[in-house]
Amino acid sequence: MMTKRIAVIGAGPSGLAQLRAFQSAAMQGAEIPEIVCFEKQSNWGGLWNYTWRTGVDENGDPVHGSMYRYLWSNGPKEGLEFADYSFEEHFGKQIASYPPRAVLFDYIEGRVLKAGVRDWIRFRSVIRWIDYDPGTGQFTVTVHDMAKDHVYKEQFDHVICASGHFSSPNVPEYPGFAQFNGRIVHAHDFRDAREFAGKDVLLLGSSYSAEDIGSQCWKYGAKSVTTSYRSAPMGFEWPDNWQELPALESVEGRTAHFIDGTSKEVDAIILCTGYRHYFPFLPDDLRLKTANRLAAADLYKGVVYVHNPKMFYLGMQDQWFTFNMFDAQAWWVRDVILGRIGLPSDKQEMLADIEERVAREEASDDAKYAIQYQGDYIKELIAETDYPSFDVDGACQAFFEWKKHKAENIMTFRDHSYRSVITGTMAPVHHTPWKDALDDSKEVYLQN
Amino acid sequence: MMTKRIAVIGAGPSGLAQLRAFQSAAMQGAEIPEIVCFEKQSNWGGLWNYTWRTGVDENGDPVHGSMYRYLWSNGPKEGLEFADYSFEEHFGKQIASYPPRAVLFDYIEGRVLKAGVRDWIRFRSVIRWIDYDPGTGQFTVTVHDMAKDHVYKEQFDHVICASGHFSSPNVPEYPGFAQFNGRIVHAHDFRDAREFAGKDVLLLGSSYSAEDIGSQCWKYGAKSVTTSYRSAPMGFEWPDNWQELPALESVEGRTAHFIDGTSKEVDAIILCTGYRHYFPFLPDDLRLKTANRLAAADLYKGVVYVHNPKMFYLGMQDQWFTFNMFDAQAWWVRDVILGRIGLPSDKQEMLADIEERVAREEASDDAKYAIQYQGDYIKELIAETDYPSFDVDGACQAFFEWKKHKAENIMTFRDHSYRSVITGTMAPVHHTPWKDALDDSKEVYLQN
Repeated sequence: MMTKRIAVIGAGPSGLAQLRAFQSAAMQGAEIPEIVCFEKQSNWGGLWNYTWRTGVDENGDPVHGSMYRYLWSNGPKEGLEFADYSFEEHFGKQIASYPPRAVLFDYIEGRVLKAGVRDWIRFRSVIRWIDYDPGTGQFTVTVHDMAKDHVYKEQFDHVICASGHFSSPNVPEYPGFAQFNGRIVHAHDFRDAREFAGKDVLLLGSSYSAEDIGSQCWKYGAKSVTTSYRSAPMGFEWPDNWQELPALESVEGRTAHFIDGTSKEVDAIILCTGYRHYFPFLPDDLRLKTANRLAAADLYKGVVYVHNPKMFYLGMQDQWFTFNMFDAQAWWVRDVILGRIGLPSDKQEMLADIEERVAREEASDDAKYAIQYQGDYIKELIAETDYPSFDVDGACQAFFEWKKHKAENIMTFRDHSYRSVITGTMAPVHHTPWKDALDDSKEVYLQN
Repeated sequence: MMTKRIAVIGAGPSGLAQLRAFQSAAMQGAEIPEIVCFEKQSNWGGLWNYTWRTGVDENGDPVHGSMYRYLWSNGPKEGLEFADYSFEEHFGKQIASYPPRAVLFDYIEGRVLKAGVRDWIRFRSVIRWIDYDPGTGQFTVTVHDMAKDHVYKEQFDHVICASGHFSSPNVPEYPGFAQFNGRIVHAHDFRDAREFAGKDVLLLGSSYSAEDIGSQCWKYGAKSVTTSYRSAPMGFEWPDNWQELPALESVEGRTAHFIDGTSKEVDAIILCTGYRHYFPFLPDDLRLKTANRLAAADLYKGVVYVHNPKMFYLGMQDQWFTFNMFDAQAWWVRDVILGRIGLPSDKQEMLADIEERVAREEASDDAKYAIQYQGDYIKELIAETDYPSFDVDGACQAFFEWKKHKAENIMTFRDHSYRSVITGTMAPVHHTPWKDALDDSKEVYLQN
């Protein structure tokens, strides 16, 4: 008889993939362990569960959400489609390729509503602490039930940490920040581009947050957008009121000074300086410490915590692929727990696996190489489980085209469409170009 | 031989008072236990240690600081002066009565620098969890050393929680907040009034935050200030571009609708909706649950946690008195730990003490009564320790005058001065009226 108990931390895309993976096995007659998913927010969806709150949430804990209003997917949906639940199955038709947040939330929710796993989740439940006892082989999980303001402890055989790593902002300090007379806000707490209409906005960073938040501010009427890079400019053909400058040196009053000697008056500084893996509930022997990279440190097969293989992490890699990669990981972790996949008994063997992944990632800094690398990782995992096989190379192709379309025009790339690798159908061209589409509601988006 | 170990949580005004209390006893030849003070920030001073950061700090944990730039004390310094370390001792002269933050920080720091207790503090050390074992009578404190990113556990005989209760914002939601097209920010994350120059600002609340942040916005050039109350208006004679309206009903676009049917276009909503006691590191059997009131729940003599009298809380009351009340509490807690003051062995006796305080607080809702009530509490505590006796009733008088001066003119009350109850000298009138003093630096303030 199966008496194992599994704790899943987080009911975002990764955690929900894990619930769906176990439910799928149960549907096919497998005996599955008891799954308890702890979710800090009052609803599922993780980052896709939009909140207007910033800083700390209604309980005083850090706000999980980093999403802002008017956010559309910044990659084609054809690169993230669930292999077991297509967009067409969910919406009853094929939809355009860069859905806004509300549309993607609806899609994520559709699969788990169908699976009927909501009962497995304890909402408003914050993990305060976890200890592992090598004597009993059990994890003790300390949980704060916010609805009752009650803290309790429970025992588990496995912990699957799926709490994400785009929630805890990396916030650097520059000389003069304490005296700056405008607003300083991290991308994590950016919510509505309309706040910056008519403003001179400075964004620090040269990755997706800078690119997309800058584009939002431009779209919703910022007077000017300045992005500041440390290593290299993004290099797109920006609109006339957008300039790229090198690294910030200091601020004074409202003036930003850059290392090339230029300066600019700005109303607000938006720190698009990335996120950090943050696990305030984990002791040293369970806590993942890794950079945001494709070959995350200390994770055998990208998911098994090598220093305690009873502990798993989902989605802790830097990501080209998202939902479908979380699925591949969740199915694989499920099969380890169900005993269908064995782990090496030798820690050295697991470390060698990680080393090989690191070396292979570092062999090239080309984006195409990285996309294919992560695609190959997905292929490797799904080959070992019953997750529906799909054309991963075709998904890579969608990403390659996306990169090309971005390079052609950063303000129109979302007007393109791609072919689903799950259903084979072509996405329609969206009814309104992204730069003119000010209403990001689900109803309007689905009017194709 | 004294082998006890004491954990003090927080190195703000309350925690520092505790360190000074023990150091003072040691100076006089007493044998004192080992004191370890855990401070989350990289410097001492608690709220008075200004940070430009909002939301979460450099470690991903909630920012402790709620202070904003240009903040001047909103009560006379004659009501908070340390009895063992006067303003004149620190500054070498008497200074004006409403010092800006940097001046008060300097004063707080002066006493503990003189006491030489900085070595007792472990900075950048976040308490992750505390458990109490009734078998051993010991607390196990789990600490995250951020400098080393290392988590460790240590045992203590007593825990003194001095982590404050004006750090974790109470953030209500109103209909339309998720779609509001302006900025929504809690007072906790308000930093620089200049950001709101030329803006129409709405402040929700009718207590000190609304009064003072509204005044700051007015002083630094807001176009208009609207404050919204739930029970009663503040009722001061506000400037022409300041209006008080009843409770907010909803927001739509940029329009705020109030329950009296009026509406107003606003650029920003500042939630001056108070703070909550927040102890994410404490289990049910140690965690204080109280409203922000003068007679805090479950605290015998306002400091001993009645459900586990080895645990103490400092400064958890609503406050008229601050630094000097924390001192009175810290000296009293010290003497309990040193065995100089005995606690009732009967829990009922402690509960009766709390009940009496509650009943006495509730006997009147008059502000003068409340000030005297808290003054009497300080007198009660210092009568039982060697904390220097001082004219508490005189300090109450300073508060009474302050109330009168505020009622006369909310924008000039800080231009008054009062007599020190510690040194007997009159404070000078400040060289510049508050409303014209745009530079809040220590150097400029001390130019009297």
